[in-house]
Amino acid sequence: MTGRDGGADLKPLPGESPIVVLVRPQLAENIGTAARAMANGGLFHLRLVAPRDGWPLERAWYASSGADRILDAATVHETVADAVADCHRVFATCPRPRHIVTPLRTARAAAEDLVEICRGRGLRSAILFGPERAGLENDDMAHADTLVRYPLNPAHMSLNLAQAVMILAYEWWNAAEDQTPPRQLMTNETHVATKGELEGFLNRLTAELDACGFLDNLPKRPGMVRNLRHWFQRGEVTEQELRTLHGVVTELSRGRMRRGRPVAEDPPTPWAQG
Amino acid sequence: MTGRDGGADLKPLPGESPIVVLVRPQLAENIGTAARAMANGGLFHLRLVAPRDGWPLERAWYASSGADRILDAATVHETVADAVADCHRVFATCPRPRHIVTPLRTARAAAEDLVEICRGRGLRSAILFGPERAGLENDDMAHADTLVRYPLNPAHMSLNLAQAVMILAYEWWNAAEDQTPPRQLMTNETHVATKGELEGFLNRLTAELDACGFLDNLPKRPGMVRNLRHWFQRGEVTEQELRTLHGVVTELSRGRMRRGRPVAEDPPTPWAQG
Repeated sequence: MTGRDGGADLKPLPGESPIVVLVRPQLAENIGTAARAMANGGLFHLRLVAPRDGWPLERAWYASSGADRILDAATVHETVADAVADCHRVFATCPRPRHIVTPLRTARAAAEDLVEICRGRGLRSAILFGPERAGLENDDMAHADTLVRYPLNPAHMSLNLAQAVMILAYEWWNAAEDQTPPRQLMTNETHVATKGELEGFLNRLTAELDACGFLDNLPKRPGMVRNLRHWFQRGEVTEQELRTLHGVVTELSRGRMRRGRPVAEDPPTPWAQG
Repeated sequence: MTGRDGGADLKPLPGESPIVVLVRPQLAENIGTAARAMANGGLFHLRLVAPRDGWPLERAWYASSGADRILDAATVHETVADAVADCHRVFATCPRPRHIVTPLRTARAAAEDLVEICRGRGLRSAILFGPERAGLENDDMAHADTLVRYPLNPAHMSLNLAQAVMILAYEWWNAAEDQTPPRQLMTNETHVATKGELEGFLNRLTAELDACGFLDNLPKRPGMVRNLRHWFQRGEVTEQELRTLHGVVTELSRGRMRRGRPVAEDPPTPWAQG
């Protein structure tokens, strides 16, 4: 689903997107999948604090699914203090907040803050993620000015490292996207039928149903026609689909036509295309 | 960071939270990490369609990090149609939407819809996730009435299965957490047809069209059937509307029946009521 690029061609300056800091990560695979999650959310700056097995680790590249340049550019630091020394703001992920003094934000609110901090004010920011299992220690979080909480099921709060990075990267992209003019959600290749074209089909269907006696129950006829209309009006219909439906009515009615029973006028209908 | 519970003590009824359907999952580990992601977001109902290596797979339990009961209760199905037969609404994740006619929602908007569908209206819903790498095929997505788009970096859109489940589970939890009183979309007297009931109609319509030769063009037949399915999947269909549509097919086919031409089996169909 992606090239080997890692989206690094879009790589912004450190001042333009937060730096992800993995504190004492244990497994190379997790560093790789975390980079993969970062690339998905448009985060390109990775810093590693005292990775357990050293750095670089080949298995990280295998697990990154193309986010190579993020790993290539990752820097290693001995301490959290060193890793965030050049940052103006430091956020720390904290599944179960204990530091009630430090400001606490949800992942979504934190992402909105980060957009304003990075894009709005051009400040350099970092987000700390703790090691697998243990999470960040108090001394690590002491470097943060803001804690980030993930609203999740308290009965089963168990994110792996990449999932934790994924959620914040996802929220970052959403918050950053809202800052820019909305992009086109859907390319409009197939032509949506006009209400007039749909009306034409409904009239023809009704005529066919009159002709075959389906609507002979006069008291109920208006309600039945209304039901059909409501149903066919739901959602959009493409011209192609309408041609298919015309073909359906034509074919299902054909037997009656051949037998010379009264039929509704039957406009020429192209065969439906797959 | 969690007990071995999987949050199953909070397990709601299927009507109260969406069912996660993994279509042709390949790796046991990914099924396990997907279950882990589900538990984090308060999703507890898992269905597997044709898992490549069969089921159960011990490695899935190892990878689930305590979401045991989700895996214990998972059911296996041969087809997507079977997996969603008892559902009223089916969402399908679609990183790069092609079916531009099917309603398309962001993960966040879809989660809000699902809260309303499940909690507000007590309807049963499912979310389809495709296999690793390939993703859902057109025939899979033809069973969905709504597609779900993840706003992420287009230059590196590469989620693994658990990450994709994680994002939707996270959005579900967030939407359910700040649930507002549900709006009333439909009058409660009308019952929404299940996907199984709709499938029954589609199978009958297809059989009728085969019988009358409409689908004789074999190369185009699959695409034409898929088009019909897409179109009838759009939005919700009530049981009443489905009865009406059965009546339409019956009547339109009758002329052919009387003439003794081959017809598809014609189940007793109640006349449509206004």
